Amino acid sequence: MADEISTLMANSKGKVVLLRLRNDKTLQGVLQNFDIHMNLTLETAEDITEEKHEQLGKILLRGDNLLAVSLPEEES
Amino acid sequence: MADEISTLMANSKGKVVLLRLRNDKTLQGVLQNFDIHMNLTLETAEDITEEKHEQLGKILLRGDNLLAVSLPEEES
Amino acid sequence: MADEISTLMANSKGKVVLLRLRNDKTLQGVLQNFDIHMNLTLETAEDITEEKHEQLGKILLRGDNLLAVSLPEEES
Amino acid sequence: MADEISTLMANSKGKVVLLRLRNDKTLQGVLQNFDIHMNLTLETAEDITEEKHEQLGKILLRGDNLLAVSLPEEES
Amino acid sequence: MADEISTLMANSKGKVVLLRLRNDKTLQGVLQNFDIHMNLTLETAEDITEEKHEQLGKILLRGDNLLAVSLPEEES
Amino acid sequence: MADEISTLMANSKGKVVLLRLRNDKTLQGVLQNFDIHMNLTLETAEDITEEKHEQLGKILLRGDNLLAVSLPEEES
Amino acid sequence: MADEISTLMANSKGKVVLLRLRNDKTLQGVLQNFDIHMNLTLETAEDITEEKHEQLGKILLRGDNLLAVSLPEEES
Repeated sequence: MADEISTLMANSKGKVVLLRLRNDKTLQGVLQNFDIHMNLTLETAEDITEEKHEQLGKILLRGDNLLAVSLPEEES
Repeated sequence: MADEISTLMANSKGKVVLLRLRNDKTLQGVLQNFDIHMNLTLETAEDITEEKHEQLGKILLRGDNLLAVSLPEEES
Repeated sequence: MADEISTLMANSKGKVVLLRLRNDKTLQGVLQNFDIHMNLTLETAEDITEEKHEQLGKILLRGDNLLAVSLPEEES
Repeated sequence: MADEISTLMANSKGKVVLLRLRNDKTLQGVLQNFDIHMNLTLETAEDITEEKHEQLGKILLRGDNLLAVSLPEEES
Repeated sequence: MADEISTLMANSKGKVVLLRLRNDKTLQGVLQNFDIHMNLTLETAEDITEEKHEQLGKILLRGDNLLAVSLPEEES
Repeated sequence: MADEISTLMANSKGKVVLLRLRNDKTLQGVLQNFDIHMNLTLETAEDITEEKHEQLGKILLRGDNLLAVSLPEEES
Repeated sequence: MADEISTLMANSKGKVVLLRLRNDKTLQGVLQNFDIHMNLTLETAEDITEEKHEQLGKILLRGDNLLAVSLPEEES
């Protein structure tokens, strides 16, 4: 990731992010960490694809499964 | 990206771009940033595939999901 | 790309090229630029897959979606 | 993997992890080892996708088949 | 490509080759050039998958779409 | 592969391993050799997916087709 | 490929090998050459998937289409 994109991700640490996956699932959780491959660790992650959410706990998601990450709006 | 393609993308920062994805979805948003993998950050992104648009807010899109980016015409 | 293939692409700049994509779509446009990943920028691009063409304007196409590029015959 | 993600994985060695695979299967086992490609070795692995679990014994899983790893909560 | 495979391809320049693609199509044309990614340029290419051949003219084919290239027998 | 994973594979040489492939097939054979891409050579390999096993003889399997390798329990 | 796997392939030059492809086809031919990507050249290749074999002549097969290569037993 370019520095600016990396900074943006870093600013989202400790905040809730929404992950849209390539397999059409949507996960939500608190961003804990990430690396240059967009591998992400989330705490209190849940699969919110279906109406009934599935608790996943602490997960490490491989970045190549990601479609997009919805980031929290930065407070200025 | 080659320098010239990178410049073209850089000129689109702050402007509305249309993203055609490999999964046949179409997103629209204001281009904020990008890197050499074509990872993009968009503000006020929305999924405009269906007639009823879905608001996505600020997103980071992984470049490998992209088919094409429709760029704004450069004003000269 | 090898130098000779790169030269061939360079000779096609400013000319109309036909792009056959891996998703079975066919695009047409004026080749503006390209890089070693075959990322291409096209002006006045259109999707000519269906009988009714769809105007795409200026686009940046990710090279990994390409099947083949039909190049204009070089005038000698 | 970034150092912090790697540390997190290292902290899970000897503990039970849950692997969600890209082919929609779910495996469970005791994490023995891993590398930067997220190739993992598990002991007493089992495929728990179906109600009737299938014993797999000691396995080496190629990392590119992984969707996500559910990690044990760290005790502090 | 290894040197010997590269030499074999080089010996096929200016000759008709048959390309079997991963999408089950078959193309035929005069090999003009190639690079280490097996990107190929063909002249007077045609899609001969169906009984009615489709003329493609001069094309640049991305190597990652190739299954196999049928090479002309070398005359000795 | 990390050194420890590599050691584990090395310890399996000359022993029967079970290969689960990404195409849902299961192969069995005596591990002869492997490399860092997890390309494997097996002797007396057989496809045991169906009840009627198919003899494959000595094979070289490309590592990118692997889902997981079931390793023999190490005797201590 | 590791040196030992490479040696094994080298020992198969000039001999008949059986190629199982990722697209479920099976080819047979005399191995002429190979490189580190497992790109292979075969002489008198034929597609033996169906009962009626299809003659392919001399071919260059891209290695990323390979599932496995059945090697001839080495005579000692």
